[in-house]
Amino acid sequence: MSPPSTIGDIPLKQLANHANSYAAAHGLQVEKRIQIDDSSSNSSSGEKKEASTYQCAPISLLPNAFPATEFERAKSLASNFNELVDRISRDGDFLQSTLGGPGGVTDADPYTRKLLQLYNEIYCGKGVNGEEWGKFAREADCLGVQRSDYMLNSKKDEQDKIYYELKQVELNTIASSFAGLSVNVAGLHRHLTQRFKNEVADFIESNERAVMGQDYVRSDGEDKGVPINPALTCIPRAMNVAYDQYQNRFEKSNSDRVILFVVQEGETNTVDQRFLEFNLWERHSIPVVRMSLTAAHTRLELDESTGTLYIKSNDGNEDKRQEVSVVYFRAGYSPADYPDGDDGIEWLSREKIERSRATKCPCLGYHLAGTKKVQQELARPGTLERFFGEGREADVESLRGAFAGLYSLGSDATPGDIDALRDALSGGEGRYVLKPQREGGGYNFYGDNLVKKVRENVMEDPSTKELKLGSELAEFILMERLFPPQQKSILLRAGLIEGIGETISELGCFGTIVSTNDGNVLHNEYAGFLLRTKFSGVDEGGVASGFATLSSPSLC
Amino acid sequence: MSPPSTIGDIPLKQLANHANSYAAAHGLQVEKRIQIDDSSSNSSSGEKKEASTYQCAPISLLPNAFPATEFERAKSLASNFNELVDRISRDGDFLQSTLGGPGGVTDADPYTRKLLQLYNEIYCGKGVNGEEWGKFAREADCLGVQRSDYMLNSKKDEQDKIYYELKQVELNTIASSFAGLSVNVAGLHRHLTQRFKNEVADFIESNERAVMGQDYVRSDGEDKGVPINPALTCIPRAMNVAYDQYQNRFEKSNSDRVILFVVQEGETNTVDQRFLEFNLWERHSIPVVRMSLTAAHTRLELDESTGTLYIKSNDGNEDKRQEVSVVYFRAGYSPADYPDGDDGIEWLSREKIERSRATKCPCLGYHLAGTKKVQQELARPGTLERFFGEGREADVESLRGAFAGLYSLGSDATPGDIDALRDALSGGEGRYVLKPQREGGGYNFYGDNLVKKVRENVMEDPSTKELKLGSELAEFILMERLFPPQQKSILLRAGLIEGIGETISELGCFGTIVSTNDGNVLHNEYAGFLLRTKFSGVDEGGVASGFATLSSPSLC
Repeated sequence: MSPPSTIGDIPLKQLANHANSYAAAHGLQVEKRIQIDDSSSNSSSGEKKEASTYQCAPISLLPNAFPATEFERAKSLASNFNELVDRISRDGDFLQSTLGGPGGVTDADPYTRKLLQLYNEIYCGKGVNGEEWGKFAREADCLGVQRSDYMLNSKKDEQDKIYYELKQVELNTIASSFAGLSVNVAGLHRHLTQRFKNEVADFIESNERAVMGQDYVRSDGEDKGVPINPALTCIPRAMNVAYDQYQNRFEKSNSDRVILFVVQEGETNTVDQRFLEFNLWERHSIPVVRMSLTAAHTRLELDESTGTLYIKSNDGNEDKRQEVSVVYFRAGYSPADYPDGDDGIEWLSREKIERSRATKCPCLGYHLAGTKKVQQELARPGTLERFFGEGREADVESLRGAFAGLYSLGSDATPGDIDALRDALSGGEGRYVLKPQREGGGYNFYGDNLVKKVRENVMEDPSTKELKLGSELAEFILMERLFPPQQKSILLRAGLIEGIGETISELGCFGTIVSTNDGNVLHNEYAGFLLRTKFSGVDEGGVASGFATLSSPSLC
Repeated sequence: MSPPSTIGDIPLKQLANHANSYAAAHGLQVEKRIQIDDSSSNSSSGEKKEASTYQCAPISLLPNAFPATEFERAKSLASNFNELVDRISRDGDFLQSTLGGPGGVTDADPYTRKLLQLYNEIYCGKGVNGEEWGKFAREADCLGVQRSDYMLNSKKDEQDKIYYELKQVELNTIASSFAGLSVNVAGLHRHLTQRFKNEVADFIESNERAVMGQDYVRSDGEDKGVPINPALTCIPRAMNVAYDQYQNRFEKSNSDRVILFVVQEGETNTVDQRFLEFNLWERHSIPVVRMSLTAAHTRLELDESTGTLYIKSNDGNEDKRQEVSVVYFRAGYSPADYPDGDDGIEWLSREKIERSRATKCPCLGYHLAGTKKVQQELARPGTLERFFGEGREADVESLRGAFAGLYSLGSDATPGDIDALRDALSGGEGRYVLKPQREGGGYNFYGDNLVKKVRENVMEDPSTKELKLGSELAEFILMERLFPPQQKSILLRAGLIEGIGETISELGCFGTIVSTNDGNVLHNEYAGFLLRTKFSGVDEGGVASGFATLSSPSLC
C-alpha cells in the first residue's frame, strides 16, 4: 500500500518539512551525537571528536482527536493522585507489606528490593546504622513531579453508542519526562491546524468521527482543539516553591544554592530537560547543575553534622562549593542507571542524596509509591480508604473509577486474582496484558505470548485444579486489557514520514506537589499534559514496533 | 599553545555544552542534511534517504565588547540609509551612469549588467518590449529590509586616547540574513552572562578594557550589556505594513494572499528564515510560501492584464491558486542562484516577479542601490546631496561620516582615486583593501595579494608615469582599510570549541522601509542588529580562515 502523498492540497512532504522547521526553531528536538573530523587548530589533524546534532523528536504530524470530557477528568484527578502518592510515601507499613516480605516483588526484583531497603533504613530507622542515620532525610520536604498515564477504554451504552472510560495505565513518580517537548508539540499542532486549517480539516474531522462516533459534529468552542499546555510554567513553579521553602527553613551560608538535576550519561532527551532548567533560570533565577549518579559519587559531599548536601568546587575551595537545595531525578529509575552494581557507587550517590536535608524529587517514598505493585494494591477494595479518610468519599470514588482491573501474580494473589489468571489461560488472553513490575523493566506480553509466559511459570495441581504460581511471576502484574479508539496518524521519525496508519494514544497528565516533612501540603496542582501516539498492532510485531511519538490531544 | 580549559571556575566544555543546549532549545541552529537508512515500512529496505539534522550555528560563546555610543550611532543611521536606498532606486539616470556605460562595472560583471538591463527595461521603459511591459512594476510598492554593516576604525586623539569611528563596510539591500539567529544569539548571551555572571566577569572585563582602554571602569547601566534585539518583531512588522498596503490597494479576489519567500535550493540557513515566517503567522496571520527561482518558473504565473502574481495550485484549479502580495528574496543575489545561465529560467522567474504588481523586497532599484559601486559613488563629494535636498544637511553629514575612503578603479576613476591606487602600490598597501564589486563575488585582497592583483591589471606609462587601469579592475573597488579593535573570543563551530584567540567584529544594523510607487514613505525604522566576529589575521590564511561567527555586542 502506498500512502497518500498529499493532505488537502498540500504535499505531505512539505507539511513534514514545515513541521521539522518549526521543531528546529522551537526546540522540539532530541540530541544525536555524531563523530566529526576535528578541524580545530589546536589539535593534531585527523582526530575525531564528538559533536551534538539535533533532530526533530518523534512526533505525530497532526494532533489526535480526544474527548474533552475525559481530558477534563484526567486534569481533575491530578491533585488527588499527587496527594495519594504523598500519603503512601509516609506509610512504611503499607509499602513494606505491599512490596516486601517473602514471595513479594522484592524477592524477584533486586532493584525494588534495594529501594525498599534504603527506604526502611533511612525513613523507618530499620538498619544497621540506626535511627540517626536518616534523620536529615526525615526532616526534608518532598517535591513530586508525577505523570499519570491514561488510556481511553471503549464501551457501548444501552443504545449501542460508544462512550469511553479513562483508565490509568501507569503512575510515574520519578523522571516523568517530556514536559518540555510536549509543550512545543502542542505549539506545533496549534500552528499547523491554524496555518493549514483548510488543508487538514478533512483529516482531522475524519479522526474526530472515528473517536466520537460518525454522527459527531465539530464545533469551534474554546474548549475544543489543542489546549495550551502549561507544563513549562507549572513544573518550574513547583520546583520554585520547593526551593523557596528550603531557603526559608535553612539559614543561608556562603554557598550559592542550586537545584541538582541528576541525569543519565549519554542522555539524548536533553532539550526536554533543558527547557525546565532554562525556565527555572528565566522565571525564578534559580541555577541548575546537571550531574550523573556516577559523577555524583565524587562531586557531592554530605555534611554529616547538618545534612547539607554540597557540590564540591573543582579546586576543592570550600568557599566556592554550591549547596543543593532540591534534587530532581531524571536518572536512577532503572537498574541500568546503576552500572556499578547493587553495592556500587551509583547507589552510594543515591543514598548520600537521600540522606541529606535537600528536597528530593522524588524521595524514596514517592518513588516506591509509583511502582506497579502499589498501583495494583490500590485497586483492591478498601485500600484507597486507608489514605483518604472521612469526607473524601467522592475523591476515592473518582480515583477508583480510573483504575483498570489489576491482578497480582505474587504470593499475595487473592482468589479473585487467580480467577482472572485462569480466565486469561482459558481463551480470555485477549482481555489481559502481562506487565513487568519494575520501571524500564521490558516488554509487555499480549495474547499467545502472555499465555506462554504464564504457562512456563505456573503449575496446576492435577487433582484439585489449583494453580500454583512460580515466583518469577511476582515480577509481573496481570492487567485488564484496554481498548482505546483507533484513528489515523502520520508519524514522523527524525522529521521524515515514517508511516501513515491506524494508531492509539495514551494521555499523560502532569501533577506537582510540595509537602513538608510533617505532611503539610504547600502546593498541589495539575501541571500540563502529554499525548503519546503509536501505531496500533504494535504487539503483532510490525516494522514500527515500539515506535511511539509525541502528540497532542485535539479536544472534541 | 594549549587554550585554557576553564573560564572562571567552570570548564569551557561545560559552558559550550550549555550554549549548545540553549541553541537547540531556542532555534539558534543551522540545517545539515544527512543520508540515513530508510527504515520506513513503505519502501524497500536498504534505501537511503535524506534527513535534516540541525546543529548550533557558528557562534562566539560570549558577547563582544562594543562602545555604546557607536552602537547608538549605527541605530540612528538606519532610517537615513533606508531613505537613501529608496531615493537611489528611483533615479534611473544615476544608476545608469554609475553602473552602466562603457568601462563601467557592467562591462566586467555580467550579473550586474543583467540586473541593470532588467531595471532599464522595466522601470525606465528602455527595452524592446516597450513602456507597457513594466507598467505594473512601476505601480508597485517597495519593501526594503536592509542591513548596513559597520566596522569600528581605531583612531587616537591628541591626548593619545583611543576613540572609534563607525565606518560602513557594506550596505545589503537583498537577502540581508541572520535576523532570526541574531535575536537568539543575543538571548543566549544575555542568558550566559547572567547565569554565569561571576564565572565570565574577568573575561568580559578584560575585553572591555581591550576595546575601551585600560582605564575603563564598567557600569551596570541600562544602556550596558547585551541589548534586546527587536529584529523578529521589526522585520515581520514591516512585511505586514507592505502586505496591508497591498490589501488596501488591490481588491481581494477569491485567492488567498501570501508572502512569497524566494529561497535557494539546498539552503542550510533555514531556521533563520523560518523565524520570519513563523513570526509573520503568529503575529500577523500572514501565510508564507517558500520557493526557489528555479521552481518559480513553473509554479508562478503572471496575469498580464492585471499584473497579479499567482502561485498555481497543484491540480491547476484556478480557485485554489494563491495570490502573491509581497515577494521576499533570500535568493537571487549571486550568479550562482541562476544556474540556468544568463537567459535561463531563473532570470525569467526574476523578470516575471519583478514585472508583477506584488511588492518586491527588494525591487531591482533597491537591489542595485546596494552594489559596492553605488556605495563608492555615494562617497564622492556632492553625491549624497543629489538625494537629500535642503534642510537635510545634518543627515547628509552623519551619513558621510560613516563612509570609509572608497576609490574607483573603473573608467570613472578620478585623479584622487588614482592617487590612492598609487599610494597602495608604493608601500601603502597595508592601508587599503581591494574588494570585488558584486554580491557573493569572492575574496578580498590585502597586502601583497592586493599589490599583485593590481599590478597584473595596470600599465604604467614609462614616460608620463601615468597609470592605465585594465578593464578587469572595474570589477573591484579600492577601499580604505579599517583597523577595528581586537578582543579575545571563544568561537564555536557545531557547538564545539573551534578556538580561542584575538578577534575582530562587524556590526550589522537592520532597517526596514515601505514606500509607495510615488515615493511616499509609509514606514521607516531601525530593525535590529547583528554582530559578526571572526579571528583576526584571517587574511594571513590561518586554519580558521573565513570562519565567521554570530555574536552580540556587549555595550560599554
